[in-house]
Amino acid sequence: MTNIRLTTLAESLPDTVPFVGPEAYERARARLFDARLGANENVFGPSPMATRAMAETQHWMYGDPESFELREALAYHNGITPDMIVMGEGIDGLLGYLVRLMISGGDSVVTSDGAYPTFNYHVTGFGGVVHKVPYDNDCEDVVALFKKAALVDAKLVYIANPDNPMGTALNGSDIVDAMQYLPKGTLLVLDEAYLECAPQRVALPLPLSDPRVIRLRTFSKAYGLAGARVGYAMGHPDLIRSFEKVRNHFGMNRASQAGALAALEDQTWLRSVQARIVASRNRINEIARKTGMTPLPSATNFVAIDCGDGPDYAKSVLHEMVTRGVFIRMPLAAPQNRCIRVSCGTPAQLDILAEVLPVAIRAAEAR
Amino acid sequence: MTNIRLTTLAESLPDTVPFVGPEAYERARARLFDARLGANENVFGPSPMATRAMAETQHWMYGDPESFELREALAYHNGITPDMIVMGEGIDGLLGYLVRLMISGGDSVVTSDGAYPTFNYHVTGFGGVVHKVPYDNDCEDVVALFKKAALVDAKLVYIANPDNPMGTALNGSDIVDAMQYLPKGTLLVLDEAYLECAPQRVALPLPLSDPRVIRLRTFSKAYGLAGARVGYAMGHPDLIRSFEKVRNHFGMNRASQAGALAALEDQTWLRSVQARIVASRNRINEIARKTGMTPLPSATNFVAIDCGDGPDYAKSVLHEMVTRGVFIRMPLAAPQNRCIRVSCGTPAQLDILAEVLPVAIRAAEAR
Repeated sequence: MTNIRLTTLAESLPDTVPFVGPEAYERARARLFDARLGANENVFGPSPMATRAMAETQHWMYGDPESFELREALAYHNGITPDMIVMGEGIDGLLGYLVRLMISGGDSVVTSDGAYPTFNYHVTGFGGVVHKVPYDNDCEDVVALFKKAALVDAKLVYIANPDNPMGTALNGSDIVDAMQYLPKGTLLVLDEAYLECAPQRVALPLPLSDPRVIRLRTFSKAYGLAGARVGYAMGHPDLIRSFEKVRNHFGMNRASQAGALAALEDQTWLRSVQARIVASRNRINEIARKTGMTPLPSATNFVAIDCGDGPDYAKSVLHEMVTRGVFIRMPLAAPQNRCIRVSCGTPAQLDILAEVLPVAIRAAEAR
Repeated sequence: MTNIRLTTLAESLPDTVPFVGPEAYERARARLFDARLGANENVFGPSPMATRAMAETQHWMYGDPESFELREALAYHNGITPDMIVMGEGIDGLLGYLVRLMISGGDSVVTSDGAYPTFNYHVTGFGGVVHKVPYDNDCEDVVALFKKAALVDAKLVYIANPDNPMGTALNGSDIVDAMQYLPKGTLLVLDEAYLECAPQRVALPLPLSDPRVIRLRTFSKAYGLAGARVGYAMGHPDLIRSFEKVRNHFGMNRASQAGALAALEDQTWLRSVQARIVASRNRINEIARKTGMTPLPSATNFVAIDCGDGPDYAKSVLHEMVTRGVFIRMPLAAPQNRCIRVSCGTPAQLDILAEVLPVAIRAAEAR
């Protein structure tokens, strides 16, 4: 393989993936899942207007590399100007660009231990060093995160609010209060993927132009377009403009741009989905409690459920669920890995959950 | 902006874009183009089976991060194993990943002067140095490219066969012959975006597992799915596996995977498109010749037309075309920038071309 000379950094990286997709499990089982409740997808789906806009797209044309109409609409929706918005191939894609812009050889970032692994994947991938702070009572500990950032001279500090995988959410005002500890040289990367599932108090009460923060949003969750890969970042125009240096300009799918625009315009559908998410969370809580487990409060479209007996037991429960056709996931780091994580589902899917969870628990206990 | 500390490399990069999209021109004109013949899109569109597969996709689910079914089908189609194929967000996305894997701080690459600028964009973006070799009679000069690669110890040498922007194509066997000059430490990046538009002689007669070459293909051209962003790379399994280190695993759109699979399965449609491309090229040649210009031989879905009077004149012709509602582009480097570049169109669009080109020429001459 003499013709393939990877960089020293690339040579050092593992070729593992941050997440295994549900399809891989399905192929291994040679059977589809009966309930797909593991990837925090939105089973209620996108607005029918979005589906129609995508179906009517002329796929032979490249998408507008500026995503102009979508950015205009998002700017209007958020009361800002389009130069404060950059689109990307999901939040994952945008995190990659952001890390590439700011992190190289040994630069530090701070995140919570057990938070979104794809951020860490990008940081390691660009030669950065990930410093971790434990969760505080299953919530991101913003003061500790910011103090750690000062200690290690972090360029980025990552917070998801609401949090994934725990589903908990801080008040936006509490983050603002904690920002007195945010060092001058640290950018707050605020992942708001689940914001549309959360109560108003969760939003960060700071202007979107605040140069201390970049906010990441997506059409994958409440808008129901995970398969379409449409994320966006909002922040100070100088920061947003810098993405032009590195992004895949023609990377945005044409149909996805049309679909996201239509989804954004159908706020009535969004509200109906939000109501269904709340109902689904309540039902998941009820199902969990019935088995003696403890659901955590959630401001997202999923519920972390404390199985009550440590990580090995939670892993067993998860295994027994997946074996029985219910795809779920679980937090990866202690002590959050005492939980399983169940995405909101339709009433029919939650009927399956209600049926399978007690059986899986008995099987896990019998191990 | 104290919170935003870009890397030294990112700081040095311009925030310009490799290409301006046709939509930007349309917004500037406040009018849609009458004929969109500038981005080498496939106006004949994808297989209706692909369109249907995309319309029937459940967009709420993430796409399979392994693009398993599509890679299986491509492997079967190409007589190889799936571990020799990686999918990406168009060839642009894959070029970005490849460059990231292999190029850092001052590493060299070689390309033709005036070849695909997005490759150069990525190389510069990862801190590499682009060395250029002139075209030879409007064809890529493979021997010169490989010799230059030896001279500068290039890690990558980029060749598009068929070539963009000139439309010319080398025999695959001529590239193989020239590979005696390819240094042991240089990987040949063979961009075959237009291969399905070309005669059989253009294909590289080497096993796809040859570790000296990585081949880039796309569903954006002959398959008519530019808006869906589906590219793939084929090569030695060790090289292909390394993409797992850096790619955006959940970056592939779900509908696009389904659309590409359906498009691949409809080879009858592909053949009909190929016939229409040939007919369209012939018509463009005829239209060009009628005005006294010289169309270059093309193995692609576009024709480079020698305007016969240097770059300023070609630029004027292009300007007058765009002003009159016909979107075309032109090569950027001398002496290829004596040409304009016209993508294949429907008979109706080529009627517009036939009408507007002579008028644009008269206007350019009158300048």
